[in-house]
Amino acid sequence: MSEKWIYKIDDLKMDNEALLVNETIFHNANGYIGVRSNFEEGYPEGYDTIRGSYINGFYDITEMKQAEKLFGMAEEKETMLNVADGQTICVYLDGKKFSMFDGEVLSSSRWLDMQNGYTARKVLWKAPNGKEVDIEIRRMASFSHLQVFVIDYQVTPVNFSGEVIIESEHQGNVRNYCNPNDPRVAGESFQHLIPDHGVVENGASYLITNTVSSGLQVCTGVKNTISAGETETGEIVLEGHHAVQKFIIQAKQGEAVRFVKYMVFADSIRYQDAQTSAKDEMEAVSSVPLEQLYKEQREYLDKFWESSALEIDGDDALCAAVRYNAYQLIQSVGKDPYCDIAAKGLSGEGYEGHYFWDTEMYMQPFFTLTNPEVSKNLVEYRYSTLDKARENARILGHKKGAAYPWRTIRGRECSGYFPSGSAQYHISGDIAYSTVAYYLATGDLDFMAEKGAEIIFETARMWVDLGCWHKGTFQIHEVTGPDEYTCLVSNNYYTNLNAQYNLHWAVRLYKLLKEAGKLEPVAERIGLQESEIEEFEKAEKAMYLPYDEKLGINPQDDSFLNKAVWDFENTPKEDYPLLLHYHPMHIYRYQVCKQADTVLAHFIFEDAQDMETIRKSFAYYDKITTHDSSLSTCIYSIVASKLGLADKAYEYFGDSAKLDLFNTHQNTKDGIHTANMGGNYMAIVYGFGGFRLKESGAWFAPALPKQWDAYRFKLIYLGRHIQVVVNKEGTTFTLESGEPVQIHVYGEECLLENSLHFPLK
Amino acid sequence: MSEKWIYKIDDLKMDNEALLVNETIFHNANGYIGVRSNFEEGYPEGYDTIRGSYINGFYDITEMKQAEKLFGMAEEKETMLNVADGQTICVYLDGKKFSMFDGEVLSSSRWLDMQNGYTARKVLWKAPNGKEVDIEIRRMASFSHLQVFVIDYQVTPVNFSGEVIIESEHQGNVRNYCNPNDPRVAGESFQHLIPDHGVVENGASYLITNTVSSGLQVCTGVKNTISAGETETGEIVLEGHHAVQKFIIQAKQGEAVRFVKYMVFADSIRYQDAQTSAKDEMEAVSSVPLEQLYKEQREYLDKFWESSALEIDGDDALCAAVRYNAYQLIQSVGKDPYCDIAAKGLSGEGYEGHYFWDTEMYMQPFFTLTNPEVSKNLVEYRYSTLDKARENARILGHKKGAAYPWRTIRGRECSGYFPSGSAQYHISGDIAYSTVAYYLATGDLDFMAEKGAEIIFETARMWVDLGCWHKGTFQIHEVTGPDEYTCLVSNNYYTNLNAQYNLHWAVRLYKLLKEAGKLEPVAERIGLQESEIEEFEKAEKAMYLPYDEKLGINPQDDSFLNKAVWDFENTPKEDYPLLLHYHPMHIYRYQVCKQADTVLAHFIFEDAQDMETIRKSFAYYDKITTHDSSLSTCIYSIVASKLGLADKAYEYFGDSAKLDLFNTHQNTKDGIHTANMGGNYMAIVYGFGGFRLKESGAWFAPALPKQWDAYRFKLIYLGRHIQVVVNKEGTTFTLESGEPVQIHVYGEECLLENSLHFPLK
Repeated sequence: MSEKWIYKIDDLKMDNEALLVNETIFHNANGYIGVRSNFEEGYPEGYDTIRGSYINGFYDITEMKQAEKLFGMAEEKETMLNVADGQTICVYLDGKKFSMFDGEVLSSSRWLDMQNGYTARKVLWKAPNGKEVDIEIRRMASFSHLQVFVIDYQVTPVNFSGEVIIESEHQGNVRNYCNPNDPRVAGESFQHLIPDHGVVENGASYLITNTVSSGLQVCTGVKNTISAGETETGEIVLEGHHAVQKFIIQAKQGEAVRFVKYMVFADSIRYQDAQTSAKDEMEAVSSVPLEQLYKEQREYLDKFWESSALEIDGDDALCAAVRYNAYQLIQSVGKDPYCDIAAKGLSGEGYEGHYFWDTEMYMQPFFTLTNPEVSKNLVEYRYSTLDKARENARILGHKKGAAYPWRTIRGRECSGYFPSGSAQYHISGDIAYSTVAYYLATGDLDFMAEKGAEIIFETARMWVDLGCWHKGTFQIHEVTGPDEYTCLVSNNYYTNLNAQYNLHWAVRLYKLLKEAGKLEPVAERIGLQESEIEEFEKAEKAMYLPYDEKLGINPQDDSFLNKAVWDFENTPKEDYPLLLHYHPMHIYRYQVCKQADTVLAHFIFEDAQDMETIRKSFAYYDKITTHDSSLSTCIYSIVASKLGLADKAYEYFGDSAKLDLFNTHQNTKDGIHTANMGGNYMAIVYGFGGFRLKESGAWFAPALPKQWDAYRFKLIYLGRHIQVVVNKEGTTFTLESGEPVQIHVYGEECLLENSLHFPLK
Repeated sequence: MSEKWIYKIDDLKMDNEALLVNETIFHNANGYIGVRSNFEEGYPEGYDTIRGSYINGFYDITEMKQAEKLFGMAEEKETMLNVADGQTICVYLDGKKFSMFDGEVLSSSRWLDMQNGYTARKVLWKAPNGKEVDIEIRRMASFSHLQVFVIDYQVTPVNFSGEVIIESEHQGNVRNYCNPNDPRVAGESFQHLIPDHGVVENGASYLITNTVSSGLQVCTGVKNTISAGETETGEIVLEGHHAVQKFIIQAKQGEAVRFVKYMVFADSIRYQDAQTSAKDEMEAVSSVPLEQLYKEQREYLDKFWESSALEIDGDDALCAAVRYNAYQLIQSVGKDPYCDIAAKGLSGEGYEGHYFWDTEMYMQPFFTLTNPEVSKNLVEYRYSTLDKARENARILGHKKGAAYPWRTIRGRECSGYFPSGSAQYHISGDIAYSTVAYYLATGDLDFMAEKGAEIIFETARMWVDLGCWHKGTFQIHEVTGPDEYTCLVSNNYYTNLNAQYNLHWAVRLYKLLKEAGKLEPVAERIGLQESEIEEFEKAEKAMYLPYDEKLGINPQDDSFLNKAVWDFENTPKEDYPLLLHYHPMHIYRYQVCKQADTVLAHFIFEDAQDMETIRKSFAYYDKITTHDSSLSTCIYSIVASKLGLADKAYEYFGDSAKLDLFNTHQNTKDGIHTANMGGNYMAIVYGFGGFRLKESGAWFAPALPKQWDAYRFKLIYLGRHIQVVVNKEGTTFTLESGEPVQIHVYGEECLLENSLHFPLK
């Protein structure tokens, strides 16, 4: 084991909370499938466990009843499904089942190997009858075979030779997890999957299951293989939607019994014939040695780390946490245009597998800078749901344009509470923003012509329909900014800037595409008129941006500063997060922010204000922000970095890095906080590294946290691979591949040919 | 029949819509029970009908699932129940059932007799076999015996003598009506009542039924009596929760068979033993001649009309409509402290039998001026739910005081959508306002000391907790005013004035009670401090009231005038009411009012602005108000009267008078618009009569609509019965009883001793 790639826990805790959190922390995913790390052998009665296997973008349509019917309210939503369980493997010694809760666990550990791409559990177990076995289990969601999940299960008798029985199950009768008391996960468990049929073929079981309402099908296949001396292999017994196979092994002391369980997933969104696809993939993967899969996994990750390596010298634990975050991002991100990145990745059922603005503003930047092809795919996904966004705009009352849904899987609005759902119009601007970011990072104008520009034109159309003219300014009323503790406001500063940027780029792309002779197809496709471009430009130029003369800050919205400041002094610790303890209307009535809002604008659209305003704004909002959202501290860290507030920047950075590994929000059991992980990356590259991607180019302004000796990151800018090393001597930029390129360092433009060195400022 | 008391329809239409509307229009109620006027004999397959009998304040608790869980959202609501059906009476001639949809209806009519207090249907029917019968049915909900509903059914053979069979049913298996497509009625039909047991005793059937969740019980009793020559009276056959009794009569040509069906209701809210109460009442009522009940009904109504007569000369149809409205008010208003006035009275299931602010601001004024005891009872009802209002305030985040729920039966918040529900804080001020109005009309300081002041102190406490200080003014953020087309705003003009009035009266009553030596009990009960009174006064004096210098009007709220005006020109007629065709957020984004809001303030709190501001405001809001609510045109009529805009006042008055009788909102089938009926009364007395009830006394400024020859109304002011007659010669005030009293006429104070005459101004 190479320590720097390993996140490891020894002496596993068997309490409920730790078990649930570790199910999330050690889940295996590859962007297509995700399997929580449940114990193969199960849990005793009375233990909670969320036993789940998910497919990104595979959903059922479920009822979302509104307490009061109102026009245009979503009454159905898409929900990611727990599709089947193939995790169960039970080992019996003389009829006694191996269990972490029985006999004696002599030693135990779990780890994630981020270089080789698997998780593992190792247990030395003494059965009640005194027999000891060494069990080591590796689990992998393959990056080279996206449909494949493998459990590599080795049992070694330590102090005996004799019979070992292994039973492996394949269960198609599964449901989603529910928790009626937490607003952040689904409150009810319906049956979303109806067994269609099961077959046993070529030593594998296949269960074919249909969704209740979305008309989709999924086939899961399980194949058990064993390498041991004397083994009696039982038939696969298929009963109903459940298959089981039993192996009776005459095991020898000190010799490992290696049991490999392949599980294959195929859904009808991607595969015309899910059953055939599952069978083909099962044949393909089980006919090569498992070592081959391991090798491919390593190769995939070597490439991934090569382009996205981010290292910190001087704080190994933090370095591992940062690497863990990057690893979760590549585990979570969809690899085809049928899906995106869910708020919890594929690690749990929190937020029902929905995609939010988090993708564009917190996770996509990582991919845009390190894996532009993945970033492009994320834009493709949004493009594939553009028609739904147009429909959504009509529902919201707009005569033209597209308004992306606040939370969705296939493109319909799945938010049941519009004041902090559909009202967050900024998501459309966020999607436009990250589409532009992809273009700025790659210069890929062809893709803009083909797909990107259409998103930007259609969202721009929505903005001009949404806004209104008042006293010569263009204003936007009745929207909610990123901060969900203040809803349905006029002229949210972030939203107005976000709309302005969207409009600006609609105008800009129109010109760029026209100059390049690439405008016609898209303009024709959506009937875009020159007069609309003029309208965009007019609104852009006249966009109203609230500014308070007296405080010298940007108010979050028109009414924000008139409200009373929340009584933080008399709010007990246990009342956080506020949303779980106060009526939303009560929260809305005060100056209190759940998360970065104006401060996010000061990062994303920093050129809209001078440094002094940003400084004052930051100080103002810093006092009234609870960071009850996981999307907040990373942004505060970045802006603190920009302002040279090194200690504050580092403190906020630390908060965001630790979130899941330390379960600081107490809901990691429902899944990882993918956005926070992307934000954590940004806090280093944009925060400490001072990186910005602008129309004017790539900008750097690195600083070195005093806690570190050095840090390194890489990025791909206009096809050039650039390495940035920041240490106590200064910053070194190295052009690893590609033609020389202009970059800006500490505000000055310079040509990066081979390498450049700058002392720290 | 005395025509001026009759509302009559001849040649009944048998289409679905007309049938449903007439079920409402001709319903019988007495404030305790309400029975829709369904045809006793039923309807053929395929016809809609809402067959319902209701008890005011009798409810079950039903689930109100929130699409997204948020802290403090109501997840259960109270729903008025359809309790049992005792309407069914079927008449058979040679096995052929009398039906309006079979044989031949030679003539038909229905009417409501508002002097005698019953509804009637008269049909001359020719059976398919040629036999003709004359059927006349009278139905009455007794005002003297609130638990009793009677059907007085007379059948007269016209061209034959022979067998007539009458079958009468008592059905306990009933459900509430549902319409999944209309947000204004319940969307689902659950079983809310579980049969407990049934008994037959002393010639009557009794069905005892329990609610599913609220722990309540209701007993309904039915007793059939017949007066005819030769009759074979069948046994009451009780099967399950259904009883039926059959009568075989040898009827003679030209001789009426008179069948009387008594139905008695008793619920466990009012009666400790519902069954015993029902039996006792049945014995009492069926042991006296029916004529006695008719006589008592007439006496009750004579007294009612004596104190509340409102007559118009020169427009008989309008006069009948106005009288119809007053009649519905006395039918709807609760007569005990367990209930209030539902938005639809007891005529249907619209709004689930909930009580809103409509009571205080639209209906109670009628009772305050004409039947102060009824008005007092309405205050008692609110007082009885004050503890619930305190609980509600805590849920909403207030450390002290009481916040009344937006819609309720027993006091819990039953609104599922808080932006146009709980956010309408003004309901607390409205309750305080009408409590004060009761005091101003009666001078009943003892009742204030006992109950009224506690309401006013507790709501005042809520206001100071709700509001905040900003730049030396007291402001109120994140509330919704009466206009539901603009929600969650800062400084709604109406709400701020309403809070100010509430605070003012808390201070005033504190002093009045202190002076009268009546303060101590209430102050002690609620721990009221002198310092709080100072705080009330401070907030009252500093209340911020938005005013726009440029337009010279009061903006509805801080952001209202910054929004674009709704595009009325391009809104097709079929898009009204807007709430059924546009997303609420879209509506909120525009200057468009569902109903009087600032204009309501200009009526209720007229002294807050000069006439010029009110004139400009009225003109401004008049252009942007859709009157999609039934609470609107009456207010516009009143303010138009105040401004001397006679034509406009009359036009708006006409709109409000016609609402239910002409079904102008197309939802009369779900019940009458009780608030509109009260509003219609106000449009005459407060509008044309220019009446105001203020701390400074009673003010009149009568005008005579040019369409009328004269109008007359009565009111009770400080115990004096005053008649006001306005005709072309002027206005005559007559003191019908009581000591001389000071009144203000056209702004001048004068002493009303016997009578006073003023020419019109």
